[in-house]
Amino acid sequence: MFYRVAQKSALHVFDRIGARAKAQGDGMTLGLTLSIDAMGGDHAPQSILRGVDLFAREYPAARFVLHGDESLITSYLDELPAAKATSKVHHTSDIVPMDAKPSQAMRKRGTSMWNAIASVKAKEASACVSAGNTGALMAVAHLQLRTIEGLHRPAITASWPTPKGQCVVLDVGANVDSDPDQLVDFAIMGEAFSRALYAIERPSIGLLNVGTEDVKGHDDIREAMRLLRLFGTTLNLEVYGFVEGNDISMGKTDVVVTDGYTGNIALKTAEGAARLVGGFLKEALTSGPLSVLGALLASAGLKRLKHRMDPSSSNGGVFLGLNGLVIKSHGGTDARGFANALRVAARLAASSYITQVSDNLKRLSAARAQTQIPTQAMKTTLTVSD
Amino acid sequence: MFYRVAQKSALHVFDRIGARAKAQGDGMTLGLTLSIDAMGGDHAPQSILRGVDLFAREYPAARFVLHGDESLITSYLDELPAAKATSKVHHTSDIVPMDAKPSQAMRKRGTSMWNAIASVKAKEASACVSAGNTGALMAVAHLQLRTIEGLHRPAITASWPTPKGQCVVLDVGANVDSDPDQLVDFAIMGEAFSRALYAIERPSIGLLNVGTEDVKGHDDIREAMRLLRLFGTTLNLEVYGFVEGNDISMGKTDVVVTDGYTGNIALKTAEGAARLVGGFLKEALTSGPLSVLGALLASAGLKRLKHRMDPSSSNGGVFLGLNGLVIKSHGGTDARGFANALRVAARLAASSYITQVSDNLKRLSAARAQTQIPTQAMKTTLTVSD
Repeated sequence: MFYRVAQKSALHVFDRIGARAKAQGDGMTLGLTLSIDAMGGDHAPQSILRGVDLFAREYPAARFVLHGDESLITSYLDELPAAKATSKVHHTSDIVPMDAKPSQAMRKRGTSMWNAIASVKAKEASACVSAGNTGALMAVAHLQLRTIEGLHRPAITASWPTPKGQCVVLDVGANVDSDPDQLVDFAIMGEAFSRALYAIERPSIGLLNVGTEDVKGHDDIREAMRLLRLFGTTLNLEVYGFVEGNDISMGKTDVVVTDGYTGNIALKTAEGAARLVGGFLKEALTSGPLSVLGALLASAGLKRLKHRMDPSSSNGGVFLGLNGLVIKSHGGTDARGFANALRVAARLAASSYITQVSDNLKRLSAARAQTQIPTQAMKTTLTVSD
Repeated sequence: MFYRVAQKSALHVFDRIGARAKAQGDGMTLGLTLSIDAMGGDHAPQSILRGVDLFAREYPAARFVLHGDESLITSYLDELPAAKATSKVHHTSDIVPMDAKPSQAMRKRGTSMWNAIASVKAKEASACVSAGNTGALMAVAHLQLRTIEGLHRPAITASWPTPKGQCVVLDVGANVDSDPDQLVDFAIMGEAFSRALYAIERPSIGLLNVGTEDVKGHDDIREAMRLLRLFGTTLNLEVYGFVEGNDISMGKTDVVVTDGYTGNIALKTAEGAARLVGGFLKEALTSGPLSVLGALLASAGLKRLKHRMDPSSSNGGVFLGLNGLVIKSHGGTDARGFANALRVAARLAASSYITQVSDNLKRLSAARAQTQIPTQAMKTTLTVSD
């Protein structure tokens, strides 16, 4: 009896998330074409194509370009009628292996990953979704699509669960150092992203620091805050101020800006802590009907948390700052996870995200010229570490 | 019925922690005198003195010097026979307010905080414990005790719960920038601290980074790893290598070294994530007997986690690197929490922690001279931000 009550409770939560996502997604897929790296991911192409089918059943207006081995893809599509009816296949026999170095992937044109991004560059598709190697995807996407004009560096964003919804955290790993100019760019991108993906009219922006007072933190972070306050009105940004680590999960702001080193560590640390709490809860339940029940209760909450917290997870991590939309699904994703990544892609494609970022970067450039604060030397080369 | 089973399960966990602490503490208090800032903390002197009494009942050989308002302290001691029998009171009417700026505290001699540290400097006590203002305590302790010779900067350490026990993480907030030399110092201090407090013979050391490969991270972190590997054998350190954020909670290494900015953010982020998991678990339980039960289960695990994770929490955050032991108890601590901080102080005082650190710093200095790698300019001034 307890088992069933607990199970029902867990399903209720998942149903609610699904309903919310569907409500937000209605009407967004008319005229949408998504470019799919069908060969990227641990379970490609099977789980990728099944994910496309799941999404196609939910949003029958969407169209897909599938990049990869045609005969293999076609054999799977025969059993996935919704995907088959809405997809065309662009054949290539080359792939980027999951353990490939970014530099290798950048030199190898014609892979399913390369071609999936090329479809976006050629305006054949509105967004590319891949469950392939993260470093390779980032490098190939950057090489083909380049950064938005006026932007210093792209960033990877994570959608972090909060009691209120989702907090957009960036950068979580595209860069290891970020100067104040880059942090301002991240604020512009994160703000537009939060509005596009979560329909927040005027997202609030926090800058991650070791305290909330103005004197806290190192020089770069304080200079970034000074710039955000100086240009906030011109850029129409809702600058909240400094936030601390615990404020992310509490949802104090809609966007949290940080450098890629700190963001990556914060994200992984939170994942570890969440897993630890699960372990401690299980440890606390040692006998009787509580063991079974406790494990069930913990797994419902933890699965949801894990699922929604991982930057490269099934709900889609996004490389912000490129002239095109590239969504990274988790390498080990299942069909449902890949369908979630497709939802993220669809929602972003239906928004004016890139235009909003581009417009704000132009405003920033004009405001800088007026106040005679030069930007630092442009660094447009993406660091590729093998 | 369920309520009682859950309660019993929670109590069982706390009992086990208590038993473990007692087993480790046996015999450590003979000849021990602790200096107490009786006026520091939100509930001082009442919860402070009750904490002393709790500890004194457990370890009747320990002695205490209580700094603060004599008549006030005496009136409380009349109802705390174990504390009364083992304490002497050093009167002062001055205190450091909980909202005092560090610079104010540094200028005000004769406060209960100042005098509590002075007792350690004068070798009247082996360690000082205070639940007062963190910034003020750090500044006053540094001013009076100074750093261990050869050390660049002190650090604050947090004891982080893992499935195996405790991971020592430092720095979690004493510094905002840390160069490679300082990170090597932190490794030396963290290693000795882990051995002293958790009786780990040869603690393994990880350096926090965004990946585990040698090429990952920024220049400073890679240089720190190069130095650790270069001097590891001389210093008899077990250098594991780079670790990632999630490795902290999983207990991959006994010590995790990081700069104060990243460490502070990682710690607070983990606290926030743990709280979020609790919230999600409660949210998942919406009706029937599960609501009550779920909340109970979560609170047992979460309380333990929260209790053990907070660096300045009741189990005692420690300022490492000074010529004397200073333990910071959480400002809002209750008697049991303060007694825990006293246990940390007692265990450290019974160890040769400072000598071990000092010896290793001398070895490092000699090794540096041989390999002709000069240390960077010594920075012995502690940053005090108001």
